[in-house]
Amino acid sequence: MNFAIVRYILGWILKFEAGFMLLPALTGLLYGEIKDALVYGGTAILCFIIGHFLSRKKPVKFQLYTREGFTSVALGWIVLSISGALPFVFTGDIPNYIDALFETISGFTTTGASILSDVEALSKANIFWRSFTHWIGGMGVFVFIMAILPLMGGSTMNLMRAESPGPSVGKLVPRVRDTAKLLYILYLGITIIGVIVLCLCGVNLFDSLTTIFGTVGTGGFGIYNDSMAGFSPLAQNVVTIFMILSGINYTFYYCLLRRQIKEAFSIEEVIWYLVIIFASVTAISIDIRYMYGSLAETIRHAFFQVGSIITTTGFSTVDFDQWTQMSKTILVILMFIGACAGSTGGGIKVSRIVLLFKSIGKELSMMIHPRMVKKIKLDGHSVPHEVMRSTNVFMAVYIVILFVSVLLIGVDEYDFTTNFTAVAATLNNIGPGLELVGPTQNFGHFSAFSKLVLMFDMLAGRLELFPMLIIFVPACWKKY
Amino acid sequence: MNFAIVRYILGWILKFEAGFMLLPALTGLLYGEIKDALVYGGTAILCFIIGHFLSRKKPVKFQLYTREGFTSVALGWIVLSISGALPFVFTGDIPNYIDALFETISGFTTTGASILSDVEALSKANIFWRSFTHWIGGMGVFVFIMAILPLMGGSTMNLMRAESPGPSVGKLVPRVRDTAKLLYILYLGITIIGVIVLCLCGVNLFDSLTTIFGTVGTGGFGIYNDSMAGFSPLAQNVVTIFMILSGINYTFYYCLLRRQIKEAFSIEEVIWYLVIIFASVTAISIDIRYMYGSLAETIRHAFFQVGSIITTTGFSTVDFDQWTQMSKTILVILMFIGACAGSTGGGIKVSRIVLLFKSIGKELSMMIHPRMVKKIKLDGHSVPHEVMRSTNVFMAVYIVILFVSVLLIGVDEYDFTTNFTAVAATLNNIGPGLELVGPTQNFGHFSAFSKLVLMFDMLAGRLELFPMLIIFVPACWKKY
Repeated sequence: MNFAIVRYILGWILKFEAGFMLLPALTGLLYGEIKDALVYGGTAILCFIIGHFLSRKKPVKFQLYTREGFTSVALGWIVLSISGALPFVFTGDIPNYIDALFETISGFTTTGASILSDVEALSKANIFWRSFTHWIGGMGVFVFIMAILPLMGGSTMNLMRAESPGPSVGKLVPRVRDTAKLLYILYLGITIIGVIVLCLCGVNLFDSLTTIFGTVGTGGFGIYNDSMAGFSPLAQNVVTIFMILSGINYTFYYCLLRRQIKEAFSIEEVIWYLVIIFASVTAISIDIRYMYGSLAETIRHAFFQVGSIITTTGFSTVDFDQWTQMSKTILVILMFIGACAGSTGGGIKVSRIVLLFKSIGKELSMMIHPRMVKKIKLDGHSVPHEVMRSTNVFMAVYIVILFVSVLLIGVDEYDFTTNFTAVAATLNNIGPGLELVGPTQNFGHFSAFSKLVLMFDMLAGRLELFPMLIIFVPACWKKY
Repeated sequence: MNFAIVRYILGWILKFEAGFMLLPALTGLLYGEIKDALVYGGTAILCFIIGHFLSRKKPVKFQLYTREGFTSVALGWIVLSISGALPFVFTGDIPNYIDALFETISGFTTTGASILSDVEALSKANIFWRSFTHWIGGMGVFVFIMAILPLMGGSTMNLMRAESPGPSVGKLVPRVRDTAKLLYILYLGITIIGVIVLCLCGVNLFDSLTTIFGTVGTGGFGIYNDSMAGFSPLAQNVVTIFMILSGINYTFYYCLLRRQIKEAFSIEEVIWYLVIIFASVTAISIDIRYMYGSLAETIRHAFFQVGSIITTTGFSTVDFDQWTQMSKTILVILMFIGACAGSTGGGIKVSRIVLLFKSIGKELSMMIHPRMVKKIKLDGHSVPHEVMRSTNVFMAVYIVILFVSVLLIGVDEYDFTTNFTAVAATLNNIGPGLELVGPTQNFGHFSAFSKLVLMFDMLAGRLELFPMLIIFVPACWKKY
């Protein structure tokens, strides 16, 4: 392990966090919350000083192997959360540090699971910071740093690989740094369009900004106690569309930008993603057709909830825990499927599910035609053996973490549905589950131990498991 | 598809079933249940006539490829169940045919999930047949036929492969037929010892016989309404031991038989199986220490339930649905792990779990040492790539069937825990689950549609998924 480079990177993370915190400080000033502004300003200074101290000395060797890349990203996210939680405690809005840390990890990992029963009691600065963590975590803080800083030659690929979701890293352009820049330009563009459209629907600027942070980052922190139930149907539909757009592989937008319309619409993952959404909305609309006043209202709610769950955002317009078991089961399955790789969404990812189905198909046809040689293809290209292997190992690790977590939070003696969906909702970075963690409930009632387990799950889910595992392997920490 | 050979095999299956049915007919005679004896005798004659008609003409080509092997086994089990269910209807004990079919499939697949609320109301002949189906299904009807009949040269490997559980077929001796014989000799030996020991514990012969059928076949049909709660502690402990012995890979016994003691105890799967049982019993005993009178009683119940669930038998001595959430979650995890490959138990199998953990370990060390070449080993041998691939595909199919089944039985509008554990209990061939399918409940309240889904799951679980999938692939049915 090259400790110097990990230290150096963590220093930069803290300096960037200091910069991020200036925005909620500014919000506090604008809304006359002087105490909150001072807290955010003060924490920013603290982060900057520590960060400066850590990154003062440049490492001698700039080589980032997988282990340094993965470790830096895992520790980076932990440091980001530990320091990001401080203002919630210092302002007194979330006095318990474990709760504040849960809320912050939930924010950065774009989970949106909250321990708060009364969100509206927060100060504007805190609401802003809480939603802004979604935006930072959505596309990724390391991707952001790479886009801004000429950090370290060409060896940043392992950082990107650890932070970007999906079975293989899709570099849009040959250079990692240019890819990072491009991703953030697209991300910023979608964010700005979203805010403008939501303002045009009659939502005020603050609400638009914080809601869109949670939408494009597929986070899902509601800024009102009833999440998005109080928004107008028009605004709800706009958010539905932006959620679904944010769950699409960014390669799609890059193709559109380059006017490769045909290429864009032939990405298999995107097609399947849209097919799954359409099928789920249809099934649920038929299933819950008697629950709402009109067909239009039923479809609107079905679309919103399906979009919210498959993209792992987690907003809600209705209490879907009251839906029929069939519809709830569809939502639970969507929780696991998740969004597209290379999007800001979480979950297992549509492309991995597609690969698994293709491998099942391959196995069956090999049984029928034993001498046939068949390659698994995606978007017309053969899928390398390495990608299939890592997809399979991903699934194995995923299942192990899922069941061990359900077992561990069993100490709180809640029912199986609560435990299973709480883990599903955090590991897939969604937010709400069913029963005691349903859309009208929150995670505040869990014990500190269970909260720690769920925090691990949120980080493991966002960083796609391996970075959070590798830091527990002693061999990883051996000096070269 | 070589239709002639499939027809021929199905004919033999029916003729063997006719033979099996003579035993409950005899039981009926012994207990003075003349009507039942006539029903079983009559059904046996019917099966024999149809079987004889189907197998009259020998197929020209005796070659059994994977597709014929898998299709024959899948259809064979279906035919076995369809005809095996008839006596329950004809005797009037289970008047509804769907229910009778559910009970029979549950029997042959050694699941032990029942639709009966009052088992004790059955005639002795029916109780005998119900438990005897566990014994036939435990080691496998095709294995039995292979042991008896010199059916078709050397091409029976694909039948064995389809019916025997585990990631790879463990042939004990070079010839398939000798392996089948040896397995049934060991199986019969354990059965006879079990019956004798249980009789010595003061259980009458009929109860010993039917209970041991369910034990060594890891089936779990109780012959009393309270399953095994009414048995003496000594008898319960005996059953615990025989359940755990039946979940062990039969290679272990073969090694013992050949006095290869060291080899026997160095089979990794067996070691892990015992470690998991020991760890689970310890954890549960600590967790439920206040629920029973003494420590000895607590450990007895913990051991029985853990043994019953991990071996996928499904007997119970207490209502474990009343246990703490933590202990119930341990049982749910054990449901999925299942017994050893090459045993009569179901579930994913310990060896597959071990392989998955090893592949996770390999992936992590490859991240830390990218240039290291590491092979996955089991029992000192490198695991072939094919075995790893089929293990991974198995897991993928398994998860798909699990979630689709939970979705489909959602139509009955039961809670998630009931649906999830009902599927887990049938797909893993266990029997009881939690909530509405807990140990004191039964599966009778499900709709006919849900029962069909669960029947599919039981067969898919017993035949390890692929035989039940391949029959739905149209390409499988094309004529050569």
